[in-house]
Amino acid sequence: MTSIPILENPSKEYLFDTLIPSRQPAILRGLNIGNCVEDWKNIEYLKKKCGDKIVSIREFTTENLDFLNKNYEFKNVTFSEMLDLILQSPEVQKMRYYFRSIGENPRKEVSNVDKFSPELSADFKIPIQFESIKEKLFSSILRISSQRIRVWTHYDVMDNILCQVTGDKEITLWPPSDVPYLYVVGSTSSVLDIENPDLLKFPKFQYASPMKGVLKPGDVLFLPSLWFHNTITQTPSISINIFWKHLPDDQYWLKDLYGNRDPIIAEKCLEDLANCIQNIQKMPPHYSNFYLRKMKEMIDAKLNE
Amino acid sequence: MTSIPILENPSKEYLFDTLIPSRQPAILRGLNIGNCVEDWKNIEYLKKKCGDKIVSIREFTTENLDFLNKNYEFKNVTFSEMLDLILQSPEVQKMRYYFRSIGENPRKEVSNVDKFSPELSADFKIPIQFESIKEKLFSSILRISSQRIRVWTHYDVMDNILCQVTGDKEITLWPPSDVPYLYVVGSTSSVLDIENPDLLKFPKFQYASPMKGVLKPGDVLFLPSLWFHNTITQTPSISINIFWKHLPDDQYWLKDLYGNRDPIIAEKCLEDLANCIQNIQKMPPHYSNFYLRKMKEMIDAKLNE
Repeated sequence: MTSIPILENPSKEYLFDTLIPSRQPAILRGLNIGNCVEDWKNIEYLKKKCGDKIVSIREFTTENLDFLNKNYEFKNVTFSEMLDLILQSPEVQKMRYYFRSIGENPRKEVSNVDKFSPELSADFKIPIQFESIKEKLFSSILRISSQRIRVWTHYDVMDNILCQVTGDKEITLWPPSDVPYLYVVGSTSSVLDIENPDLLKFPKFQYASPMKGVLKPGDVLFLPSLWFHNTITQTPSISINIFWKHLPDDQYWLKDLYGNRDPIIAEKCLEDLANCIQNIQKMPPHYSNFYLRKMKEMIDAKLNE
Repeated sequence: MTSIPILENPSKEYLFDTLIPSRQPAILRGLNIGNCVEDWKNIEYLKKKCGDKIVSIREFTTENLDFLNKNYEFKNVTFSEMLDLILQSPEVQKMRYYFRSIGENPRKEVSNVDKFSPELSADFKIPIQFESIKEKLFSSILRISSQRIRVWTHYDVMDNILCQVTGDKEITLWPPSDVPYLYVVGSTSSVLDIENPDLLKFPKFQYASPMKGVLKPGDVLFLPSLWFHNTITQTPSISINIFWKHLPDDQYWLKDLYGNRDPIIAEKCLEDLANCIQNIQKMPPHYSNFYLRKMKEMIDAKLNE
């Protein structure tokens, strides 16, 4: 298994002239993400700052959060109650909890940590090396979860940094070129159990090329758009995830609140292809199979150019 | 190299209940295609029947007729002059000639041997076993060519029978599923020299599964639509090729005079895909490559269903 490269204290120039254009992920170590790394170890501190806020959290029993089968329920609790639930000792813990901040108007606004809690937000800083992304900022998301929570493999369409504040989180990444091996539905892989995949159901999964790494408090993962990612918390965990628009504004959907809707051109193209595939099947199978193969060759020829 | 199956005197029931539905080609031997097999050996007989008719023939110098690079010229001669040119002895012959009958109004009508020459047509019969195709007849084509003429690899979109009248013709066929290996442009393979293919340019050609056979006078090749075919005359050759519509009428283009235009749904689908591929390339390459791969997977998933 390849390791996700770790870069110690990279310069802004290296990040924007080399790393980001290379479309390769990296764990960035030694950047300053603010006092949160120290202060948020103290649960009483967090409760004092934001304890009464009502939040919606996912509650579930198994390790693998499953977006395709929705094996979780939403539950409203105060931020303080959530912290108690999430940080309770593993012996006590029967349920697992996962919190991801959303917009004030969750159907219309993206998550913004500044708005969610100016008090907490004051403790967090986008690292100075990433100063320039602020003008293209899309969303900032607070993620808090119990230990041993695995979030399903999926891709997002915006570059982002995942800033680990407290706890350890294991990250598995697959390059965009692994899309043939991940049985993708929408932006989500159907292979839920990546440690013990069902190779009868998902035989091509064995050809994928994952990279692994562990984020420690203070670490920042640069996650390029379209890279598939799967995370599992090794301990209770708090992180802040910053998304920015690195394509021209007009390539994104206005209403994509989660940053995972395929860009406009791409989505239309996939829709057209789906219609095309449906139409071609109005012909007898020996015709539709032939033309599907011909279509595949047209795409392959373009990929091999 | 697999041989094209040879069927001795197959019944109508076998042809229409088994062979044609199987979408497999075969050389049918022992069918009656009329007096032409005997009478057309005699060049004076042919000249007497149709000698004065002006025909347009392809003239060229190399063995491989090349539709993509159009390595031939058209020349108008009388049918008698053509026969002399085509049948002249190999020692004399510097040029090669290939004749394919066309419609009276060649831009609007398909070829019809009855109209081309009722006198010659009277000597030819569609074998009684194929009687039922007469109601769905599309075109009938007279093909006359010098020895050692190779006609480029391509597919047609209608089922047809190639009735060999005089001379021997070697046939190479590839199943529709070989489309990934034949470097197809439109309905034509880019691999011109199939005996000594340029494997640096066409590496996947080696994975194709050709079948070979030789048509002797009186033999009838059943050639299912979408099968790629390449022919080479071993001697001067005369044949008649009968195409019929085996899909519902409204699936074909009204103006497809050669029976090689992709059916309406298919052509539209291929056009949509071409547009799609063009659009997706308006995105940065790491996006367009990803979405092209995703498109390819959508097609693959359908093919593997």
